[in-house]
Amino acid sequence: MEKQRIINQQMKIETLRWFNNRLEMIDQRILPAAFEYLSYYTAHSVAEGIRNMVVRGAPAIGVAAAYGVALEALKLQDNSAAEFTSGMETGFSVLAASRPTAVNLFWALQRMRTVWQGVAEQSPRQIAQRLLAEAHEVLAEDIRINKAMGAHGAALLKDGARVLTHCNAGALATAGWGTALGVFRSAVEAGKKISVIADETRPFLQGARLTAWEMVQEHIPVTLITDNMAGHLMAHGEIDAVVVGTDRVAANGDVANKIGTYMVAVLAKRHNIPFYVACPLSTIDMNIATGKDIPIEERSVEEVKGFRDYHWAAEGVKIRNPAFDVTPAELVTGLITEKGVVLNPDAQGIRKLFETN
Amino acid sequence: MEKQRIINQQMKIETLRWFNNRLEMIDQRILPAAFEYLSYYTAHSVAEGIRNMVVRGAPAIGVAAAYGVALEALKLQDNSAAEFTSGMETGFSVLAASRPTAVNLFWALQRMRTVWQGVAEQSPRQIAQRLLAEAHEVLAEDIRINKAMGAHGAALLKDGARVLTHCNAGALATAGWGTALGVFRSAVEAGKKISVIADETRPFLQGARLTAWEMVQEHIPVTLITDNMAGHLMAHGEIDAVVVGTDRVAANGDVANKIGTYMVAVLAKRHNIPFYVACPLSTIDMNIATGKDIPIEERSVEEVKGFRDYHWAAEGVKIRNPAFDVTPAELVTGLITEKGVVLNPDAQGIRKLFETN
Repeated sequence: MEKQRIINQQMKIETLRWFNNRLEMIDQRILPAAFEYLSYYTAHSVAEGIRNMVVRGAPAIGVAAAYGVALEALKLQDNSAAEFTSGMETGFSVLAASRPTAVNLFWALQRMRTVWQGVAEQSPRQIAQRLLAEAHEVLAEDIRINKAMGAHGAALLKDGARVLTHCNAGALATAGWGTALGVFRSAVEAGKKISVIADETRPFLQGARLTAWEMVQEHIPVTLITDNMAGHLMAHGEIDAVVVGTDRVAANGDVANKIGTYMVAVLAKRHNIPFYVACPLSTIDMNIATGKDIPIEERSVEEVKGFRDYHWAAEGVKIRNPAFDVTPAELVTGLITEKGVVLNPDAQGIRKLFETN
Repeated sequence: MEKQRIINQQMKIETLRWFNNRLEMIDQRILPAAFEYLSYYTAHSVAEGIRNMVVRGAPAIGVAAAYGVALEALKLQDNSAAEFTSGMETGFSVLAASRPTAVNLFWALQRMRTVWQGVAEQSPRQIAQRLLAEAHEVLAEDIRINKAMGAHGAALLKDGARVLTHCNAGALATAGWGTALGVFRSAVEAGKKISVIADETRPFLQGARLTAWEMVQEHIPVTLITDNMAGHLMAHGEIDAVVVGTDRVAANGDVANKIGTYMVAVLAKRHNIPFYVACPLSTIDMNIATGKDIPIEERSVEEVKGFRDYHWAAEGVKIRNPAFDVTPAELVTGLITEKGVVLNPDAQGIRKLFETN
């Protein structure tokens, strides 16, 4: 991996980009203190980048995985067909094992596998080119989808709305534009004056570091709070709507998202504040009936002891670190998808998304 | 102020102590990395120690304020009666302005003023000795009250209970033993096996630093989580009860406590988990009808930017930092007081506490 330091100024955020036959990803562990791209050449290094959260956010993980497959094919393209196939299978396995909750990872791997199967009779070099073209398409499509979601979601926000979001479902969580933050960008583009309240989102602090940074770059007013303040602000009438992203939606509309989302949803319900989930169709897992079956990643306890290398927790304490929770569909006012908004989502409403065109 | 470094080993926690004609307080800003006492000689320095959170926790603030009054009297005792009175009034004012939410501060100041008025005809030296004796009594009484609350509260916890607490309502928040953590200590003393789940409690991290440390010292099993994980654990049946402290309870039973308590209470209600508040009578403010009238302190935005001098938040973001929130009485299963438990607290139940003996 090579590092490349870029002056931290207002810029179009390219979370992932293809450059000189390699994948470059913004190192999200060090933002906003530093803005750096890391370079990736293999499925194995991309899997490591997903695992250690250089890249995070369900759609971005999907795009990274697609490029990971393409990189592995390029790496193996001068081998025999048998060696190519064997190496590719290992690459798929390593990528699939990187993080368990975001379904976009598996969605992207399945998409790349289907493309591979369609050209399996061709040479490894031809297959590699086809897979790279598909990865480019996954990236481009992600941005198109985000903008479509943004337009549908923006219509839900009234002028002047103060909107809470949790974690980072922004350009940094996607190929660009963002899901929840894409809704905010689209609302502002449509001339609405909105302001954002960002939960800091312990332990990885995606809200304080990434969402706050994105909104400041865009000149969208943003106020940072700790994760335990949302209830107080809701009780004082200071929040008009909630929009979050998601890592996996079950067929019945249950939503897995960053830990703490469930608490926000319960509080929003109590205060009659609409709770929206920006959710591309690639995040809906029709193979899972309810949220109970969504695997929830438990990450290293080191993350909760402090932040980065700065530890403050008392020695000897046990620690839990579930990275996601599940918000039942009954708490979701609407799913914002690229095909429109599904109000009061349930199995029927979600099934319809996949039936119509 | 002098510093005194003590080996960090298992010990009886004396949050405040009188030593060599001065007040010593554990510096809670640096725990658990370091265990140090700071020394105080005047009301003014005690007020600063309260403001900057060397000492925190409603009952401990009350004890500190009582000693602050006594220290000021000792400092002024060789002055004329007029100078003594004038200096004392300034001392009272400075202490009263240190923090707005915890009513124990005002309760302790009123108690010291009443004592002063009772001996106003005596010499400054005699008054100072009387005030010092009263401060000692405030401290001793606080521990007695905590143990009485502990016994009442312990009876509410079943053997094996997994109990969530927020912030630190422990020995460090009182003269010793603790309110919420006093309930845990008493339960263990009574032979019950309980385990504690501690919210880390951003931004000051009282849970990660202080509650976790106290429980580790006591060998009471304790698991640390971030503030956004409580809902997930409740949804998975991993929490049997919640016990928290409080900074002020209104006459109708509304409870002001550390920011985030309200979110925990709402989640507990949803999951039919009992939510108890350990609350000495000195924390009940009969002059305030409902929680709406409790002043909520907004602290420096610096606290939310990061922790201590380590800042991670994006530059340019606005920040809110309300230090407390209000949990309506309807969400409180019971108030644990030194006079017993008030179930489903309301104005009538609370009034009775002050009528009976």
